[in-house]
Parts: sequence; structure tokens; C-alpha cells
Amino acid sequence: MDGDVDVPAGIQRALSAFLDRQEQRLAAIGPELTEQVQAARDATSGGKRLRPSFCYWGFRAAGGDPALPILPAAASLEMLHVSALVHDDVMDSSDVRRGAPAAHRRFEALQRERAEKSGYGGDPVGFGVGAAILLGDLCLIWADELLHTSGFDAAALARAEQYFDAVRVEVTAGQYLDLVAQASGESDMDLALRVLRYKSATYTIERPLHIGAALAGGDAHLISALSGYGLPLGEAFQLRDDLLGVFGDPALTGKPAGDDLREGKRTVLIAYAVDHASEAQLVEFDRLFGRPDLDDDEIQLLREILQDSRAVQACEDLITDRTEDALDALDRAPLADDAARKALTDLAVAATSRVV
Amino acid sequence: MDGDVDVPAGIQRALSAFLDRQEQRLAAIGPELTEQVQAARDATSGGKRLRPSFCYWGFRAAGGDPALPILPAAASLEMLHVSALVHDDVMDSSDVRRGAPAAHRRFEALQRERAEKSGYGGDPVGFGVGAAILLGDLCLIWADELLHTSGFDAAALARAEQYFDAVRVEVTAGQYLDLVAQASGESDMDLALRVLRYKSATYTIERPLHIGAALAGGDAHLISALSGYGLPLGEAFQLRDDLLGVFGDPALTGKPAGDDLREGKRTVLIAYAVDHASEAQLVEFDRLFGRPDLDDDEIQLLREILQDSRAVQACEDLITDRTEDALDALDRAPLADDAARKALTDLAVAATSRVV
Repeated sequence: MDGDVDVPAGIQRALSAFLDRQEQRLAAIGPELTEQVQAARDATSGGKRLRPSFCYWGFRAAGGDPALPILPAAASLEMLHVSALVHDDVMDSSDVRRGAPAAHRRFEALQRERAEKSGYGGDPVGFGVGAAILLGDLCLIWADELLHTSGFDAAALARAEQYFDAVRVEVTAGQYLDLVAQASGESDMDLALRVLRYKSATYTIERPLHIGAALAGGDAHLISALSGYGLPLGEAFQLRDDLLGVFGDPALTGKPAGDDLREGKRTVLIAYAVDHASEAQLVEFDRLFGRPDLDDDEIQLLREILQDSRAVQACEDLITDRTEDALDALDRAPLADDAARKALTDLAVAATSRVV
Repeated sequence: MDGDVDVPAGIQRALSAFLDRQEQRLAAIGPELTEQVQAARDATSGGKRLRPSFCYWGFRAAGGDPALPILPAAASLEMLHVSALVHDDVMDSSDVRRGAPAAHRRFEALQRERAEKSGYGGDPVGFGVGAAILLGDLCLIWADELLHTSGFDAAALARAEQYFDAVRVEVTAGQYLDLVAQASGESDMDLALRVLRYKSATYTIERPLHIGAALAGGDAHLISALSGYGLPLGEAFQLRDDLLGVFGDPALTGKPAGDDLREGKRTVLIAYAVDHASEAQLVEFDRLFGRPDLDDDEIQLLREILQDSRAVQACEDLITDRTEDALDALDRAPLADDAARKALTDLAVAATSRVV
């Protein structure tokens, strides 16, 4: 519950209603498509609904009338997020998402079942990857459809579209930077900071706020004030996420312990460690980091290097600083609504401590 | 040249200008993104511009004023097409597109070059796949942005959006049906016909006509008349494409001879052959069809089975019938413009004989 409205519940309703309509439409093309709609239902269930929440409160911050269809419009950001996650899991060959099989693994299992019945082996891995690419495409298309069929008038939609275009391109560009960073085999602080910003910060907080505010007719002054809050907070959010990827409890993250170390994710945390580790630590680090078969002891060893090089402390300090900057900016921001100020304060804590 | 305007040249200009703007925007995120923009430029160059051409003439057929920005709007369909091709090539592991390396192979080669310089091997194949998934995503996002930033007013865009939403979902659904068909290891005429319709027919001709007509304010009667022309013509177009995938000249198709036989594409042509082949032919067919290492003699053997089972003749007959149905429907259609009638007649020939 954020403030006076249960945004996550409203987002769930909007997503379910939208997917009901899509299921009817796709049934006309073929019963096989039910598999895609079901995968979309599962992929869009759960999660903290951070992006739609920021969109909702950006709308309220600009004085938007809660009787307008802001929840379906905000749900578009959850659909966009799911599209990015599904494609990201294919690119990273991740097996697990939110404690359940990743979409490509789910389709792979479906095809294995079918193959067992028909006796034709085929290529279940290839089917899984192909089907997940298409699921991500559908969610990307549906994100847009959710927004422009939400019920806002054409003028409001035209104001929001420039930010919606920006966020879609930014997150895709950020993913590409991440891919380049992983492929380089090196840690580069400048590149890690740009991945942090575009793959996550603008996309999770700043742009959702902008889209909500634009739908409500917020002016340039408010949009800029929301950036002052959203950008540092988005960076703090992702720094927390990076720490959880290494130190997080699998029961809370929905991913195996130390998963980011096995994947070799070149985060700001890692870039700091590489810049500040001793030579002996660096040798050990290079030997272990990014090996898919790391055991618990090796994970522990890498964690110690991150602690001892003070990389963990540096990230914690950054999180604290950026969150404070965000809250200071929020104090000064010309919000139209006190409930929005309260909700955005609560969300700042929730996004950076990840205990929602 | 179609009628009184050079649509392909106008589409090329619109795509280049749009990608120039995107390049500037992405440069702010990082110089690495130039690689994505360059890949998009190459992927959107060449081709027959069939989809934008049908969109343009649908607009003119509805009495649209050619001084309006119909070419940038129509270019959105070429961008959508490129998105589908890039993802399709990843799903099929195709090496070649339009005579050049497929996008994922191109990114793979880029990463190999970088890896040679840095001495870090990494995973160039994984990089290629990931980068091509992101390129397809960018083109899908840009298709939408091209349409809604084309310069049409909000009312015209709102009319066109329902058809744009439909075509994006239909082509993705059609791709999924195709994936299911390939994975089944069987030929099923009903499924092959649905793939034909949704993966290609509606997407190549009917929906582009609808989008153009809707932008011009065409009424329901015209929209329906355009379906009468577009749907059968779209099916004839894809049947021709299926024949070319087996019998086509590599110099014209931009793909190796008999490529669809190596890939094991379960087309209407193949479904017909399987339904009508003798038992001896069927044994031979099952032994060879879909084997990636088929040599020229084996390709020739499969071609003979397709001829002898009369599958080729059946497809040719279908192409003739559907094209005639399309032209009859065009004769009766209430078009606002004689140039449009002439151009759509010419396009019907061009799309089904593939000699443009």
C-alpha cells in the first residue's frame, strides 16, 4: 500500500484485464497462442511494481486526477519491464527469474513435453529461445498498446509519448552497453556507471515519474524537479540491486546466491573492487570471477575481496549519498499533492533497502 | 517507381533522416551505440519496400493528400519488418539476409575483431545473439516512434493505431505458429495456412493498406474492400516466396539455393507434397527434409518430389487464383484515386512474380 491507494493491486487488475482482451484476440489466430498469453500472465505477476508506482505518484505529484485511467497507463511500464527481463534472461542464459523458471526455460520444458508425446525430438532449447524472444516482443508491443489504449485523451498521450519513447530506447541502449561491458572482459568504471544509469536508473524511476507527470500536464519545472529526485534515487536503487546480486538472500532475490558473480556482471561494485584490490586479490579475483561453476567457498572468497577492497562500503556510501540527494530534491520539488510527497518518500526507502 | 511517385526512394530518405536523429540521441548515452545504429542502417537498406508501398497506396486509395507526411509514416512498416527479420534470423540461426551476413553474425564478427585486439576471447556467438535481440527491439520501438512522430495529427494517428497494434501482434503470433510448426516435426496443412496468413499475408499487404487508409480517414467500406484485395494477394505473395525459397535463384533471393529445404520450413508447399506424395517419395522426403547439410543432388531430389507430387503446380494454381481474386476485388473497390488503382494493380504483379 503506497499512501492512499493500493497501486500494486490496481496494476495487477489492469494487467489481467488487458491480457484477457489479448487472449480473446489471439484465440482467433490459433489455440497455440494461449501458451504465449499464459507465459505473459506468469511473467507479469508478482514483482514490486516499482515502475508503475513511480508513474502513478509522478501523476499525482503533478496534480493528476486519480479518477483518470492512470493505473492502466502505468501498467505499461510493468509490461515494458517484463519485456526487458524476458530478453535479458535469454541473453544471459539465466535459468531462474523471481524464483521460477525463466521464460525460455519454461517454453523449452513445454516443447520437451510435446516432444515426448509425439516421439519427435526436435530442438527444445532452440524452441525455448525463439518463443521467449517472441514473448519479449509481444510484451514490448503490448506496453505501447496499454499506454495508448488506457483511456487518456490524445493530448495527454502525446505529452507522455516523448518520455515513453525515451525510456524504451534508453533501456535497450543500456542493455547493449551492459553486453559490451560483459564481452570486454574488463572492468571499466565509466562504462559501469553508464550501464547503471541507462539500464536501470532512468528506466526504473526518472522516466516513470516523467510519464506520469506528463499525463497529468506537469510543466517543465516539475519534470526537472522529478529528475532531481529520480536520477540519484535510481542509481541508489541499482547499487542496492548490485549488492543484493552478490550478498542477497536467495529467498528474497529469487535467484541463486552469488549469481552475479557466476555471471560475471561488470557492475560499479566490481569496477570499484578491481580499481582498489591488492595485486594478490586481483589474481584471485581474475581466477574466479565469471566462472559459472563457482562453489560456495569460492563465492565466499570473492565476497571477501569485495569487502576487503572496501568496494562494498563505497557502494553503501554511494547509496546513502544518492538517496539523501534524492530526498533533498524531493523536499524542494513543487509537488501538487502531499500524498505524493509522502508516497515518494516511502518509495525512496523501499527502492533502496529493498524490503518492500 | 510506382505510379506518380517514387515510394522506395521516399522511404529510404525517411529512414535515413530518422536514424540520423536516433544516432544523435544515442551518442549522448555512449559511442558504443553507433554500432547499433549502423546495423540498423544496413538492415533497413535495400529490399523492395513492399509494405510501405502498400501503405502509401492505401492512403492514396482513401483520397489522402500526398503533401501529408505519409512517407515517414509508411516507413514505420519497413522498420517493423526489419525488426521481425532480425529476430527471425536469430531464431532460425540463419547466416545470411539479403546477400549479407545476418545481424547476429555481423555483431559476432565485430566482437571477434575486438576480442583479437584485446586478447580476451569471451563469447562472440552469445554477444552476436544478444546484440541482435537488442537491434530487433530497437527497430520495434522505432517503428512505433516513426509512426507517431511522422507529423500526422492525433486523430489520424488514433485511427491508424488500431491497425498498427493488430499487425504487430499478428506477425509475432504468426512467428510463434511457425515455431510450433517447425518444432512439431510434422506437416499440417491447417497450421501451414495459418502461418501463411498471419506471419506474412496480413502483415505484408492487408494491414499496411489499412494503416494508410486509416491515416487518410478511409471509411469501413473502403477498409473492407482493401481486405478483399489485400488478403488473397498477401497469401499469393507468400506462396510465391515459399516457391522461391526452394526453387529461387540465389542471386535474386539473397539466400543459398534450396535454403528452406535445409531449414525444414513447414510451408503450404511442403504440407501439400506430404499429403500427396507416394509412400516411396515420403520415405525419401523424411530422410532428407530439414537436414542442414543437404548437398546439391539431395536438394534436387527433394525438388523432384515437390514437382512429382504436384505440390508446385498446386501452389502455382493457388497463386493464380488468389491474385485474380485480389484484382477482381480491386476492380470493385471504391478507390478515391485512379493512380492508386493503377499502382495497386502493378504491385499485385510485382508481389506475386517477384521480379521487381
